[in-house]
Amino acid sequence: MNRAPLSSTAETAAGADALRYRRVALVGKYHASGSRDALERVVHFLHDQGCEVTLERDTAQHIGALGDAVRDVPGIGAHCELALVVGGDGTMLGIGRQLAPFGVPLIGINQGRLGFITDIPLDRFAETLPAMLRGNHDEERRALMQAGVWRDGHCVFETIAMNDVVVNRGGAPSMVELRVEVDGHFVANQRADGLIIASPTGSTAYALSAGGPLLHPSIAGWVMVPIAPHTLSNRPIVLPSDGEIAIEVVAGRDPSAHFDMQTFTSLLPGDRITVRRSAHTLRLLHPVGWSYFDTLRRKLHWNEGVVA
Amino acid sequence: MNRAPLSSTAETAAGADALRYRRVALVGKYHASGSRDALERVVHFLHDQGCEVTLERDTAQHIGALGDAVRDVPGIGAHCELALVVGGDGTMLGIGRQLAPFGVPLIGINQGRLGFITDIPLDRFAETLPAMLRGNHDEERRALMQAGVWRDGHCVFETIAMNDVVVNRGGAPSMVELRVEVDGHFVANQRADGLIIASPTGSTAYALSAGGPLLHPSIAGWVMVPIAPHTLSNRPIVLPSDGEIAIEVVAGRDPSAHFDMQTFTSLLPGDRITVRRSAHTLRLLHPVGWSYFDTLRRKLHWNEGVVA
Amino acid sequence: MNRAPLSSTAETAAGADALRYRRVALVGKYHASGSRDALERVVHFLHDQGCEVTLERDTAQHIGALGDAVRDVPGIGAHCELALVVGGDGTMLGIGRQLAPFGVPLIGINQGRLGFITDIPLDRFAETLPAMLRGNHDEERRALMQAGVWRDGHCVFETIAMNDVVVNRGGAPSMVELRVEVDGHFVANQRADGLIIASPTGSTAYALSAGGPLLHPSIAGWVMVPIAPHTLSNRPIVLPSDGEIAIEVVAGRDPSAHFDMQTFTSLLPGDRITVRRSAHTLRLLHPVGWSYFDTLRRKLHWNEGVVA
Amino acid sequence: MNRAPLSSTAETAAGADALRYRRVALVGKYHASGSRDALERVVHFLHDQGCEVTLERDTAQHIGALGDAVRDVPGIGAHCELALVVGGDGTMLGIGRQLAPFGVPLIGINQGRLGFITDIPLDRFAETLPAMLRGNHDEERRALMQAGVWRDGHCVFETIAMNDVVVNRGGAPSMVELRVEVDGHFVANQRADGLIIASPTGSTAYALSAGGPLLHPSIAGWVMVPIAPHTLSNRPIVLPSDGEIAIEVVAGRDPSAHFDMQTFTSLLPGDRITVRRSAHTLRLLHPVGWSYFDTLRRKLHWNEGVVA
Repeated sequence: MNRAPLSSTAETAAGADALRYRRVALVGKYHASGSRDALERVVHFLHDQGCEVTLERDTAQHIGALGDAVRDVPGIGAHCELALVVGGDGTMLGIGRQLAPFGVPLIGINQGRLGFITDIPLDRFAETLPAMLRGNHDEERRALMQAGVWRDGHCVFETIAMNDVVVNRGGAPSMVELRVEVDGHFVANQRADGLIIASPTGSTAYALSAGGPLLHPSIAGWVMVPIAPHTLSNRPIVLPSDGEIAIEVVAGRDPSAHFDMQTFTSLLPGDRITVRRSAHTLRLLHPVGWSYFDTLRRKLHWNEGVVA
Repeated sequence: MNRAPLSSTAETAAGADALRYRRVALVGKYHASGSRDALERVVHFLHDQGCEVTLERDTAQHIGALGDAVRDVPGIGAHCELALVVGGDGTMLGIGRQLAPFGVPLIGINQGRLGFITDIPLDRFAETLPAMLRGNHDEERRALMQAGVWRDGHCVFETIAMNDVVVNRGGAPSMVELRVEVDGHFVANQRADGLIIASPTGSTAYALSAGGPLLHPSIAGWVMVPIAPHTLSNRPIVLPSDGEIAIEVVAGRDPSAHFDMQTFTSLLPGDRITVRRSAHTLRLLHPVGWSYFDTLRRKLHWNEGVVA
Repeated sequence: MNRAPLSSTAETAAGADALRYRRVALVGKYHASGSRDALERVVHFLHDQGCEVTLERDTAQHIGALGDAVRDVPGIGAHCELALVVGGDGTMLGIGRQLAPFGVPLIGINQGRLGFITDIPLDRFAETLPAMLRGNHDEERRALMQAGVWRDGHCVFETIAMNDVVVNRGGAPSMVELRVEVDGHFVANQRADGLIIASPTGSTAYALSAGGPLLHPSIAGWVMVPIAPHTLSNRPIVLPSDGEIAIEVVAGRDPSAHFDMQTFTSLLPGDRITVRRSAHTLRLLHPVGWSYFDTLRRKLHWNEGVVA
Repeated sequence: MNRAPLSSTAETAAGADALRYRRVALVGKYHASGSRDALERVVHFLHDQGCEVTLERDTAQHIGALGDAVRDVPGIGAHCELALVVGGDGTMLGIGRQLAPFGVPLIGINQGRLGFITDIPLDRFAETLPAMLRGNHDEERRALMQAGVWRDGHCVFETIAMNDVVVNRGGAPSMVELRVEVDGHFVANQRADGLIIASPTGSTAYALSAGGPLLHPSIAGWVMVPIAPHTLSNRPIVLPSDGEIAIEVVAGRDPSAHFDMQTFTSLLPGDRITVRRSAHTLRLLHPVGWSYFDTLRRKLHWNEGVVA
């Protein structure tokens, strides 16, 4: 199972001091209190390490100038070798999806409780990052979803999702009816509150709440989880990610589709939401020895019995 | 366990031909095709039995005059001794809630697939009803929910629900946060898609889809089922029905409350939805020997293995 | 909902110093290290309070003489006004079932992590017990299960269970087939690893692991939970506790029945396991203001989100 | 998604009558009544098609001579080009595992209810098989599990499993504690009734009953499903099949391991059960146009609503 990590880059004797990543972008969760202080400390640290720091544009607008330059996402994609994200999984979700097409790897630094993919605590970045900036790290790649909304044969919306694609009913308590196909094969007509297609990364988020299984990040599949399905045997199913899943709206009041945090409202009967594997992947860098399972145990409280 | 049926009334030798229910109301699902025919057959049958037939007002508006009189719900409550409902569980749900305060017992005749509470198939009513009209039947009583919405200390909405009270988020994919109290005791802050409080009657409906247990009709309790809860240990819990459950909206986008099919939108933070046991009950009449468990087995396909 | 607590006994002004419970039995988990020390401290404390202390016989055999007398369970039942149990929920389970017929109330002191029914931490007993010994406490009553095994029309085993009655397969991976009846009404033929009938007290134990709901202690019902059922729609069902549930062994290799921790092996096809509500109840005393829901929240970690 | 079917072999114009599979083995479920008749009909049919028929040895012992030769499994593996299995999924399970190392493809003919992998009804074989025998079929390959039991560093048992590997407790109601590792990485200590590692083929069997998801046959993963886990957040997890899963027995009474229908009892603390992907696969032939999803829908009754 040489996938997670895909590779562990050894620090060479000669290059102990050689930076592998010099042009570093910094992206922050700028609504949280204390964010400016945190970002400022990271900038100073990066300067001390010999890095050139680019502040992401929206971050800079809220926090003010801190780095050597300000760039938008395409600018970062063209210029930077690494992105440091200071925030939570949600912040990572937003920027990761945008940076994926440029192949820029990301490191997540968490300000609050550790996340599933932001695995370096803020108060320990100074001891953890020096080795990583020198290429001494593990890398894993997370699959991304290429999703679209089709109406009358035309694609009317297209985006990339990291966690999940959700098609659900409006606020009214009636169900939606959705017709699912995989590569043109009819799978099922589902009547439910909605349907979640989650990536391995998203399998620990909404899909888990709705009763889905965990998917190891190296699984080449998506899990489809019905939300409160009318038919009790409509169980979660793991589908291969190298095909196309299509969800057609059959009936329902005010159904809408959601791609991570982006929403497409006013779906009509006959609209089709499609999900394919994106050509791009999210590149995550972790400290050497990082384990996905350690994160799971900590986040899911597996060490504490819940039942007496 | 002398509750379901509460009583089985024996036909006395002398009164074999004596009608126990002479003034019978007829309520129909009037949108379905073939409804008029079905209702017409039932009316003729009732006349033959010696009954006086009242047609429910809405039914009459759609179907036209068929019976001896037309009355609205209060009129039926004041005049009739029995209501025959021709339709499905949904039709029963609508009229049952309205007739409950008048203590009129109901018999459900199903036009399509048998329901949980409409247990006489349309094509067999002629052989089943004569005995029942003469008082030869089992009777069970179903608890009803008295529900309200409170804002700033005032009750702004009040109704009776037969199946469930649901507080949920709008169409956007964000969760609602709800604070639950039972008789003033803090139970939990739940972050989820929503929360269902279901009666035993409603435990086979939406609550079951969301992962709740079945409640036998004689259980003096409601089951509270979270929909896609953020915290995995937020499991369904059966609460006593002789107290008051209060659900306070803490946060969330466009939350709304639903009482069977009725909706109260635009809930605000601080609004409280309360549920108590109604002083009224639904009186259901069944053929002698009816068993709740027979219905469960048939509706839930317990006789067919699902897994190989 | 004046059941939990059933009553809150106010300390009268005049009787602030008057003991309500003078003859106190002490029962300990004697296998745990440090148990003798803990029990010794409790004995000294009780003497200081003016109580006469009876040490339960098995406890005394392992720990040695500590109290004023040593009595077996019937002796305690005849003589003592209160039983203090020092241990965990398991210890309480063992002694509570035996003491129930005598109506002796129990207080649970927990040596390790707080339990569902042992709610006073060992390091706080000295500040909590004085008021309780003077009658200043809440009391709740938990229903107990009267269970039996019947073969060829004869009762071959009978006992009381506090948590659950379980009928399951042996170690081999084949299923058992069990026929369930309630008050003589056929419920279902279940093919599964086994079947759990749990009381409200037991609903937080094995039944919860197997997917059952929580039952508030005041619910007059048992929950029947199938373990890994062959038929996906065989969901947990809450049944009234004032009837008789009978589980008949239809087929299976080496099935056995378990009543809390007691086991009846070598069940044969045709054997029937019956469950009724015991005439006795478990009387639990809690500090004034105790709330079942506080215990649930703490034990089930409801305050900590599990999903990111 | 060109995996299921892996290939659809077109019948060439010239070779419409050319048999692709001439040396055909026949394996039957010989305990069922009517089996001899069914097998006899298949033998006659195969002779008519021009096939040479080998009867599997155990089948022949129970049914008597019917074919042109009798061979054991290695003999079939060396001689035959195709195996026809008449029975249910269980029969297929038994022979498929044994034939896999020889690369002989299988066709499943079902005597009773259609199975997940025996998809040709007995009464339709005569119209379905002629095209298939001429190579006009779809083929899919199912992953198999190479499993072992290790004690003190030595492999004491080794086998191939098609559905699942289960480690569970004995008949007593106490839990087992199992330590799980994936490729040497610690995953979790699980306390439960047991643990199931299921292949995609096995995901519709025991794992589904225990709450696991469905895995499409093309997913390169196993699903690990805890049975009645003590910790509520111990959810099913899909693990990559190209690594090694090791389950170490930590504690428990009479734990045993099960590999499809084979059992290894008397596991000791420290014993390790390992699961890897077998180098062999199960080759299943289906009629052209066969769809996995059609089978799912039919077997799981997805067309019938279960909740009203």
